[in-house]
Amino acid sequence: MSASPPGTGPRVVALCGGVGGARLADGLAAALTADALTLIVNTGDDFEHWGLRVAPDLDTVMYTLAGLAPVERGWGLEGETFHAHAAMARLGAPAWFHLGDTDLATHLVRTEALRQGATLSEVTERLRRALGVAVRLLPMADGPRPTTVLSEGRTLSFQDWLVLERGAPPVDALRFGGSPDPAPGVLDALEAADLVVLAPSNPYVSIDPILALSGVQAALERRPVVAVSPIVSGRAVKGPLAEMIPRLASEPASAGAIRRHYGPLLDAVVVEAGDEGQVTDLPVLGTRTVMGDRSDRARLARELLAFATRTVCRW
Amino acid sequence: MSASPPGTGPRVVALCGGVGGARLADGLAAALTADALTLIVNTGDDFEHWGLRVAPDLDTVMYTLAGLAPVERGWGLEGETFHAHAAMARLGAPAWFHLGDTDLATHLVRTEALRQGATLSEVTERLRRALGVAVRLLPMADGPRPTTVLSEGRTLSFQDWLVLERGAPPVDALRFGGSPDPAPGVLDALEAADLVVLAPSNPYVSIDPILALSGVQAALERRPVVAVSPIVSGRAVKGPLAEMIPRLASEPASAGAIRRHYGPLLDAVVVEAGDEGQVTDLPVLGTRTVMGDRSDRARLARELLAFATRTVCRW
Repeated sequence: MSASPPGTGPRVVALCGGVGGARLADGLAAALTADALTLIVNTGDDFEHWGLRVAPDLDTVMYTLAGLAPVERGWGLEGETFHAHAAMARLGAPAWFHLGDTDLATHLVRTEALRQGATLSEVTERLRRALGVAVRLLPMADGPRPTTVLSEGRTLSFQDWLVLERGAPPVDALRFGGSPDPAPGVLDALEAADLVVLAPSNPYVSIDPILALSGVQAALERRPVVAVSPIVSGRAVKGPLAEMIPRLASEPASAGAIRRHYGPLLDAVVVEAGDEGQVTDLPVLGTRTVMGDRSDRARLARELLAFATRTVCRW
Repeated sequence: MSASPPGTGPRVVALCGGVGGARLADGLAAALTADALTLIVNTGDDFEHWGLRVAPDLDTVMYTLAGLAPVERGWGLEGETFHAHAAMARLGAPAWFHLGDTDLATHLVRTEALRQGATLSEVTERLRRALGVAVRLLPMADGPRPTTVLSEGRTLSFQDWLVLERGAPPVDALRFGGSPDPAPGVLDALEAADLVVLAPSNPYVSIDPILALSGVQAALERRPVVAVSPIVSGRAVKGPLAEMIPRLASEPASAGAIRRHYGPLLDAVVVEAGDEGQVTDLPVLGTRTVMGDRSDRARLARELLAFATRTVCRW
């Protein structure tokens, strides 16, 4: 099948959360022309800090594609300083979430633009262009859709759970607040996609908030969808996912659990080499999915695109 | 005369603008016990930048008394970095006003507190305590009172005039917007003062906005008032004051012009050594008024207090 008009290349849409999603997005951006790729990014973990609107996943994706993200640390900017943070702590402000000095500019611009009436989509477009990011970067929604964590009778805001409490409280359920429409362009991009990639982000807190938006799941059911497993040899590359799966899905953490989580939406799966046997009912590509530098991300993206071409796409 | 209850020392109130006022305030804080000094600071140049509420004079006074201000530069913090500023410029935000990374924390805390419903007085109290400033620091008013500059048919906001246009447009008149009450404590402090000091700040843009608040001038008429001339040998120590006086007062810039500007409010004047002859109708102290380091500021403050004791105060 092909949704591309004649004369254009294949169109790829990737659904992304934070660092794993950002790195695969960076690889896809290197492997495709800019107009062939659209990134749809989770905003369920957006929150307000120091009076500023912080969008961690959007910024991680944006900084990564701008070449400004650290290769090691999963957030913020390479070479970042934290002088404002230290001063905030001295003034008694909450210091559990680190906003670097350069990063602060992004939140200041976003906050002010939103106050002036811009949408999150509009300010995201402005920010990514200013940072030289060539591909389309769409927040999943312009309206608020805060993810909350239910843990042993407590309800925690997402960042309180992940950062303040270091993801330690066991997750009994997740709630996605609000009922915003998908942001402008999201459904159109999905409808026009020759391939949809579910990036190796946490399915529960990064991908599900996007899938749960009105019309997204229905659009995906009509497109070829390939997921990259964020579980490698039974472990999460980063974050508390490996502890969440047994509690939320009643099975051990594995690439197979990821495949079952997405159910009939998926047409193919990319897993870490050695994990291929965990997916028996769909085309599966085993390769090195733990991404390092930019060339390694591009390598994975090219392998994924070639695999999708062989198995589920026609373009 | 004495407004001090028995057993307490003399009470001094200083009206201050930016750097000159901040340095004399720093000297007074060294020369007096903390409970004997109240600083009332101009807020006419407060403005919003990057969505943040910036109070340049309050912050200059606060940083100077906290020992955090540079000895040379008249604004900001010693050893300050400007990484957020550089990032703001990259994102297309206005970059003509420099907010340093550490300074940003002050504006973030202030802005957020004001949004949460705190008054400027309340957040100023919180900030000065967090920075270890022991003396009372009162904004002149909690409500907005923006100074605007009328120049050759144009109306400029104060910071546009001073910083963006570098104080170059000739000043035909000044307007003080709004009609807020003096902040809580301002009139009480003035009523209880054994001495009021008009710091060597620009009279037109730093001191007059305070004097023009309802009740302030009347309170000063009942107290001994000593001004320190910001004009030294016909020149302003800093800023465009020397160009403003001929245009606004139709006389050359001089310590005498400062004395005449304040008119019957004044009881005595401190001027630069050599300028004593310019004030003939009041007690005058000639000394070194251009302040350097903290000990030099304390030296001037002690000389001023001794002079006031000899001439206009009884305590």
